[in-house]
Amino acid sequence: MTTEQEVREVAGRARVAAAELAPFTRAEKDAALYAMADALVAASASILAANERDLAAGREAGLASGMLDRLALSEARIEGMAQGLRDVAALPDPIGEVVRGYTLPNGLEVRQIRVPLGVIGIIYEARPNVTVDAAGLCVKSGNAVLLRGSASAHHSNVALVAVLSEAAAKAGLPADAIQLVPGVDRESVTHLMRARGLVDVIIPRGGAGLIRNVVENSIVPVIETGAGNCHVYVDAAADLEMATAITLNSKVQRPSVCNAAETLLVHASVAPSFLPVVAAALHEAGVTLHVDSASAGFVAAGDLTVPATDADWETEYNSLDLAVRVVDTVDDAVAHIRRWGSGHTEAIVSGDVRAVRRFSSRLDSAAVMVNASTRFTDGGEFGFGAEIGISTQKLHARGPMGLPEMTSTTYLVTGDGHVRQ
Amino acid sequence: MTTEQEVREVAGRARVAAAELAPFTRAEKDAALYAMADALVAASASILAANERDLAAGREAGLASGMLDRLALSEARIEGMAQGLRDVAALPDPIGEVVRGYTLPNGLEVRQIRVPLGVIGIIYEARPNVTVDAAGLCVKSGNAVLLRGSASAHHSNVALVAVLSEAAAKAGLPADAIQLVPGVDRESVTHLMRARGLVDVIIPRGGAGLIRNVVENSIVPVIETGAGNCHVYVDAAADLEMATAITLNSKVQRPSVCNAAETLLVHASVAPSFLPVVAAALHEAGVTLHVDSASAGFVAAGDLTVPATDADWETEYNSLDLAVRVVDTVDDAVAHIRRWGSGHTEAIVSGDVRAVRRFSSRLDSAAVMVNASTRFTDGGEFGFGAEIGISTQKLHARGPMGLPEMTSTTYLVTGDGHVRQ
Repeated sequence: MTTEQEVREVAGRARVAAAELAPFTRAEKDAALYAMADALVAASASILAANERDLAAGREAGLASGMLDRLALSEARIEGMAQGLRDVAALPDPIGEVVRGYTLPNGLEVRQIRVPLGVIGIIYEARPNVTVDAAGLCVKSGNAVLLRGSASAHHSNVALVAVLSEAAAKAGLPADAIQLVPGVDRESVTHLMRARGLVDVIIPRGGAGLIRNVVENSIVPVIETGAGNCHVYVDAAADLEMATAITLNSKVQRPSVCNAAETLLVHASVAPSFLPVVAAALHEAGVTLHVDSASAGFVAAGDLTVPATDADWETEYNSLDLAVRVVDTVDDAVAHIRRWGSGHTEAIVSGDVRAVRRFSSRLDSAAVMVNASTRFTDGGEFGFGAEIGISTQKLHARGPMGLPEMTSTTYLVTGDGHVRQ
Repeated sequence: MTTEQEVREVAGRARVAAAELAPFTRAEKDAALYAMADALVAASASILAANERDLAAGREAGLASGMLDRLALSEARIEGMAQGLRDVAALPDPIGEVVRGYTLPNGLEVRQIRVPLGVIGIIYEARPNVTVDAAGLCVKSGNAVLLRGSASAHHSNVALVAVLSEAAAKAGLPADAIQLVPGVDRESVTHLMRARGLVDVIIPRGGAGLIRNVVENSIVPVIETGAGNCHVYVDAAADLEMATAITLNSKVQRPSVCNAAETLLVHASVAPSFLPVVAAALHEAGVTLHVDSASAGFVAAGDLTVPATDADWETEYNSLDLAVRVVDTVDDAVAHIRRWGSGHTEAIVSGDVRAVRRFSSRLDSAAVMVNASTRFTDGGEFGFGAEIGISTQKLHARGPMGLPEMTSTTYLVTGDGHVRQ
């Protein structure tokens, strides 16, 4: 078989599995999730052996230590993944929820009901825990899943999917509900993205290059995730102590993730008092500041202070770097964010109700934080219990995606012989 | 300028207009809609003159009379379009609705709020009334619209958009909120579909060829609409009089539309009693029946009875034709629909609760009608007050799309100096 035939064959079986899985009850799905969790722990030795093959290959290929760490499994990490499955089992089942329901004047009863999407393709990079997370969320939401991890985690993913799908099948789920997409080259990704009619949605999780490739080439609908060029705007009416704490937290608490701040915008009226203080605190934390000409005068010179160019405004550093710009008005802050931002999360620090209203109503982002850190845009922090990613597109789901975002709806309309006049 | 530059220039202006339009209040938008309605009526003479140019060109090109009728405007039709705008003004504003709202244990207040999508591109065929409907729905939902009608209605569309955008601008809306996409050749459609980052969503409205072209070639997200291969399943436990009425209504009340039935599935146990009766009524109404071998024996032979092939099961006739097949069980009906259907609307006629539950829970369609005609899948019938189309995809919107389906959401999260630990 060609790679195309292999991918389409696997997708076709996922499609059949999705049809079987859709009417499963919560009790049936949760039993499978608990069984999958137990099976992972029981199979730790073989999973770790497979993981060691990936790690050895990674070391030989000279993978950076950060990458190797993300790739590495351990007894504790396997227990963590198993606990994640149990946590998903404890969440409410989104399927069957009546989203809207009413009776029309003619007596027809209209119910809009949550149903699974069908077959979800997940294309992701190194971390093997995504394999388990995604499989658990898809089972819970009644979807069949096609997992396409990176080549560097291939042996780990093969081992994990074998354990998960076998445990799910033993618990009564369709055996093809959880499958790995065959092939580790680009071709298999391409064919997955062309499998319209077999695959209902593709969710890419990874770096900007991966996401751009999927968005531009997929004819299967895509939910775009991940890219985050987030801003903190410190208004004229900001509590400056609060502003320092929020800026620091947004930047340094975990700089590698999409909801970390990348640019600080400061109202000109508070720049002289605020910038020296926040810059010192950021420098202290090891942050390099990329400053525009208006802020340069308020920021101590040195190795950690460099001039900003336009490239800085659009860069998602994902590192201990922060662009800094002085703006004259709330509207200038909004204009900067609309021009350079990625539409993920923007924070305003202000005690002025009118400034907050203007800022929040004129942006075009998935989330706006008022007097809070950008780092709160997260399914866990929002109380979703689980998250498949953070959507930065506007269709279907925007912001953190939990179980309800992994569903579609159908209308069930009940009459008593109703015909249209 | 090249066509590409022209399209991108127009889309760029729409993007700016969308940012301006987003915070408009309901009162401001409704005032514009009423002004647009009045302006249409006042400009009737020039609109009809433009329409006459399209009609003359259509007659010369030998357009079918049905097409010419769809293209033709009249005083009454213009008044109808104007009334449509007033009706949209009377509907609630979807923008600002709090979809979800709660306070987290740490005191952060989370609000998920409806916001406009931004720039909506509508690609559609002959009917000029779509120009007015789409403009009205986009204004009401705070979106800028890029209209790309067919070449055959070009003069009518130019006249209508000139009237609508001028009236909207006079009423205070951004002048570029309602624009026609330049060009009438395929190239301008292509560049619209490539304008990712400028256009937020494309909604194609028209025949299967148009929709397929958009779905396969657009890198802007698409909401797929329209194709409807709908089924009526008459169960063993059906009230056969009701089944006849529903079958007839689903097929003949308006055969050219997407929610008309194309295939009748009949449980084997009622085929001998039901098929002769329903076939006689359908023949009487001029319907050609495409019958499988099992139903052939129960249907009177003649010009209006022909044998079915597999091609019939997948055909959306949009005419007085109906495929007929006998099935042995509810599950066989479901399997037939899953195999051949388009996922639009399926009806079951049955008095058996278990059969209804099995049928409705195992399909994968936008709507299931229980003891009601397929023709009810419609925004107007569902009480939406207006409809931009009927989505047959699973992401974002499924089934009839009203104003709420023309929105996205954003999270507004309010704290008091909250940072993440």
